[in-house]
Amino acid sequence: MSIIPDLEWRYATKKMNREEVANEKIQAILEAIRLAPTSSGLQPFEVFVVSNPKVKAQLQKAAYNQSQLTECSHVLVFAVWNGYDLDRINHYFDLYEEVRQHPKGFSDGYKNSVIKLLSSLSVEQQIEHAARQAYIALGMALCEAAVQKVDSIPMEGFVAKEVDEILGLDTQRLKTVLLLPLGYKDADNDWQYGQKKVRKSTEHIFTFIE
Amino acid sequence: MSIIPDLEWRYATKKMNREEVANEKIQAILEAIRLAPTSSGLQPFEVFVVSNPKVKAQLQKAAYNQSQLTECSHVLVFAVWNGYDLDRINHYFDLYEEVRQHPKGFSDGYKNSVIKLLSSLSVEQQIEHAARQAYIALGMALCEAAVQKVDSIPMEGFVAKEVDEILGLDTQRLKTVLLLPLGYKDADNDWQYGQKKVRKSTEHIFTFIE
Repeated sequence: MSIIPDLEWRYATKKMNREEVANEKIQAILEAIRLAPTSSGLQPFEVFVVSNPKVKAQLQKAAYNQSQLTECSHVLVFAVWNGYDLDRINHYFDLYEEVRQHPKGFSDGYKNSVIKLLSSLSVEQQIEHAARQAYIALGMALCEAAVQKVDSIPMEGFVAKEVDEILGLDTQRLKTVLLLPLGYKDADNDWQYGQKKVRKSTEHIFTFIE
Repeated sequence: MSIIPDLEWRYATKKMNREEVANEKIQAILEAIRLAPTSSGLQPFEVFVVSNPKVKAQLQKAAYNQSQLTECSHVLVFAVWNGYDLDRINHYFDLYEEVRQHPKGFSDGYKNSVIKLLSSLSVEQQIEHAARQAYIALGMALCEAAVQKVDSIPMEGFVAKEVDEILGLDTQRLKTVLLLPLGYKDADNDWQYGQKKVRKSTEHIFTFIE
């Protein structure tokens, strides 16, 4: 088995048809995000799943009026921790010890080394580190969406401050890094549909050291 | 169809058994990386596919002696562009016009807006932006590896400067951001094998705005 045919099928959908994506499919895409591996397991992000038409319209305004934000079924808003703080790190290690049935404090040594490492980064670097982890989850979400034959388009083109305000993220110490509309293509009106995929050749990206 | 069972199967493999991964499977994992979407389509990274035992041993030294680097079959080294320069951006747009059979210069307007946007970032920000794109590809590689039942462990714990020196990346204006050993688990000796996966609950990660 392979998902390559699905990855060839997917493309950045420029025009969607307002059809709703079944809840079962949305849940599968979210589960791919939840299962994504992250640095030290911290999962330093949250995802806002927006299907409310008014909020989608607000997001559209904050994203240079890109049409997919209101034509899609759901917008996933990836928001990362606005810095790694002790509460958040402690929450993960408490969960770790609980799930793995270790005594409390079992992972203190490892936890302290993680805290030491992350504390050595500036807040800006911490946000970037968290963003990278969110992008792993994005990659997995795109795979599951493709397998489910749900169209998608990852978007970096938006005013993060405005999206943060719309969703009240400042007060939650979160910062938007990516929008992912999910829906179904409007094949008749999407100029990008059916166009040949543009990717560098294998030789250009990969170097084999054998 | 869904890859969720595969994502549940995969885990950060702590001990591998030195078995070789068939070339066909490696190629499929690389193809997932090549097909990954990236900001403006630029694919701002390269991947070094290391199966040479001596080079794997050198990488191991640069990565705090983590055993998987020599127990694995292949190490994928993700290296991002050390800044977005004009040559690299031009190369992409030339490719775009060629693949889509547009006249030369067809996409100059869009290209110039991309150049303007990326030039407004510091080199450090450009590297971070490129790293995020590489992590999308990482997410997709992890999915395809899981579907192919190839074990993997993404690693951020290494001295980037040393890895760059081993592979001569400085002279290629590249910078290592991640190592991904691929291989097969040594189930008898991997303490992590069979352990319950630690992930936050759906309620903790997702907020639904309906």
